[in-house]
Amino acid sequence: MSKFRTIWTTEDRYVEVIDQKILPHELITRKLLTYKDAETAIKDMTVRGAPLIGATAAYGIYLAVRELVEKQLDGSFLDAAFSDLRASRPTAVNLFWALDKMRDALDNSEGDFLQTAWDTANQIVEDDVETCRMIGVHGLPFIEEISKRKKGDVVNILTHCNAGMLGCIEWGTITSPIYQAIEKGIKVHVWVDETRPRNQGSNLTCYELTRHNVPHTLIVDNAGGHLMQHGFVDMVIVGTDRTTRNGDVANKIGTYLKALAANDNNIPFYVALPSTTLDMTIENGFDIPIEERNQDEVRYMIGKQANGEIGSVLICPETTQASNYGFDVTPARLVTKIITERGVCNASEEGLLELFPEYK
Amino acid sequence: MSKFRTIWTTEDRYVEVIDQKILPHELITRKLLTYKDAETAIKDMTVRGAPLIGATAAYGIYLAVRELVEKQLDGSFLDAAFSDLRASRPTAVNLFWALDKMRDALDNSEGDFLQTAWDTANQIVEDDVETCRMIGVHGLPFIEEISKRKKGDVVNILTHCNAGMLGCIEWGTITSPIYQAIEKGIKVHVWVDETRPRNQGSNLTCYELTRHNVPHTLIVDNAGGHLMQHGFVDMVIVGTDRTTRNGDVANKIGTYLKALAANDNNIPFYVALPSTTLDMTIENGFDIPIEERNQDEVRYMIGKQANGEIGSVLICPETTQASNYGFDVTPARLVTKIITERGVCNASEEGLLELFPEYK
Repeated sequence: MSKFRTIWTTEDRYVEVIDQKILPHELITRKLLTYKDAETAIKDMTVRGAPLIGATAAYGIYLAVRELVEKQLDGSFLDAAFSDLRASRPTAVNLFWALDKMRDALDNSEGDFLQTAWDTANQIVEDDVETCRMIGVHGLPFIEEISKRKKGDVVNILTHCNAGMLGCIEWGTITSPIYQAIEKGIKVHVWVDETRPRNQGSNLTCYELTRHNVPHTLIVDNAGGHLMQHGFVDMVIVGTDRTTRNGDVANKIGTYLKALAANDNNIPFYVALPSTTLDMTIENGFDIPIEERNQDEVRYMIGKQANGEIGSVLICPETTQASNYGFDVTPARLVTKIITERGVCNASEEGLLELFPEYK
Repeated sequence: MSKFRTIWTTEDRYVEVIDQKILPHELITRKLLTYKDAETAIKDMTVRGAPLIGATAAYGIYLAVRELVEKQLDGSFLDAAFSDLRASRPTAVNLFWALDKMRDALDNSEGDFLQTAWDTANQIVEDDVETCRMIGVHGLPFIEEISKRKKGDVVNILTHCNAGMLGCIEWGTITSPIYQAIEKGIKVHVWVDETRPRNQGSNLTCYELTRHNVPHTLIVDNAGGHLMQHGFVDMVIVGTDRTTRNGDVANKIGTYLKALAANDNNIPFYVALPSTTLDMTIENGFDIPIEERNQDEVRYMIGKQANGEIGSVLICPETTQASNYGFDVTPARLVTKIITERGVCNASEEGLLELFPEYK
């Protein structure tokens, strides 16, 4: 791993990923040898984040083709791989997009299926890196503008969950403008929402900001409103798992609360997204099915124990039940701008169609 | 302990309290034999919640008088007790109020000092019980109304932090209307915000709702907005640490975000308070100094480990710093009604003065 990426290929043409379940406490990588390994990695959240899930699923198909070829299995094996991978995470539109792309490539392949699967999966990865880089190019001016207005003083950015490079391959979505600002010498400080129940903020965003030397402060999810009321936040920027035709944005549970607070305090609220997360077939966000996850993610908290081992603690009475919705929908009216790899637009059908006329 | 209270007297006229530090995992009571025991219980948060702190301090003075009498100490011992207890939690308004009440009673006592201290402390406790009961009487109609509108279907109530009986003596503030609704056979279900960083929701509110057989579900602080968007919340009710003259409400960090979401979804947002938490000397909430607490409350999470012991886990990189504001201010415009022991009013100076004309 010469570059800091989340997924990469090995010399023997297998795939390796960072095990994000045990970040930030340990950096361990996992080798994926079969499509079942890829499916498990998606399901148990060894990998997470829409683009990375898509890339992992794409490599999963490549691994299925490889197994099919090596073991001389019949086509039903590949069909099973497609359907298992498709069912690995319900809300992630990137997953379906990547699988469709792999299916198309294989359907249209005239030569070596295995090489086609390999090339297509690699291309999906490289496309994501370029997409994220371009999101940074288009998002950077918002940070520069605030920096200029504050005469070079620190720009305070609040974010929720991890839409960083750890959810992608490299750059990340919301972190791309931040990393590019840092590279240009702009002073930036990030307020990182812990992001209960899975703590992607404290675990992942803090980890990658540390690794990229970006000044940051961890806060509980409850704190953002107070910080905004007191002028400690200049802008909010979040990612999204799915954006609908009208500009509604489904993202990690709690995003909507921060959008409300930003709106109430006249703070710009940006959503950075690769266009692969657009779902123009759905009219508005309230038609998106919201994943309900295991209640123990709420009842227990995972972290590093005093003895250095990763463990969990129960934080409620044994008998108490919990509810665990994974995402919420932020209505388009609360989104200041959407930042994509093609440029910036309003959070509306009109705005999206200006940048993506192919959906007209 | 025939009744379920947070503080009570024993046959030998000492005082016992529930050790709230280890709730909900164990129910252990502590006997307070000296004022120093009371001071420690307040300081180390064996007891917490404004009314309970006040009651503990009052009994602390009774215990000091008892020690003074039994050991034939001089008056400086009692002065030390007053000043030690006054310094045990420097920001709790109820603490000062209770100590002043004890001082007044002792100053005006013409007979048996020990009996005066005993009676006055007991009266402070009984007054709180009655105050909380009356908050329930005045808050109950809001629940009854929703129950009627829903034709007897479950009334879903969301709350943040613990403004329950565990912070008081009995009934609690926000739980008083809920317990009274349950007693009347009204179907109620409570969504309990975990309330990071100290988890008073998952630790304390879940515990006391369990003990009172109130159906409830634990949620992360991020989830309330989504639940409100989808009609799963009929009303929100929270407590407050301090309410200012204009009806602004300082309460546990994160309350403001829930108020915004309730407002955005036309869900009533009630604040239940004993009038001892009114601070009519402050014009508006933004003049309230907000306590900044130790960052390790954010960086670590406390709970029951797999081995049954209470322990903590680190949830971010070792080097990451955290910010930890304890409270936020919910502007009066987001508060539907204030519920007090005297009745219900609008969250405004006018509204408060109608119920409390003595502050005119």
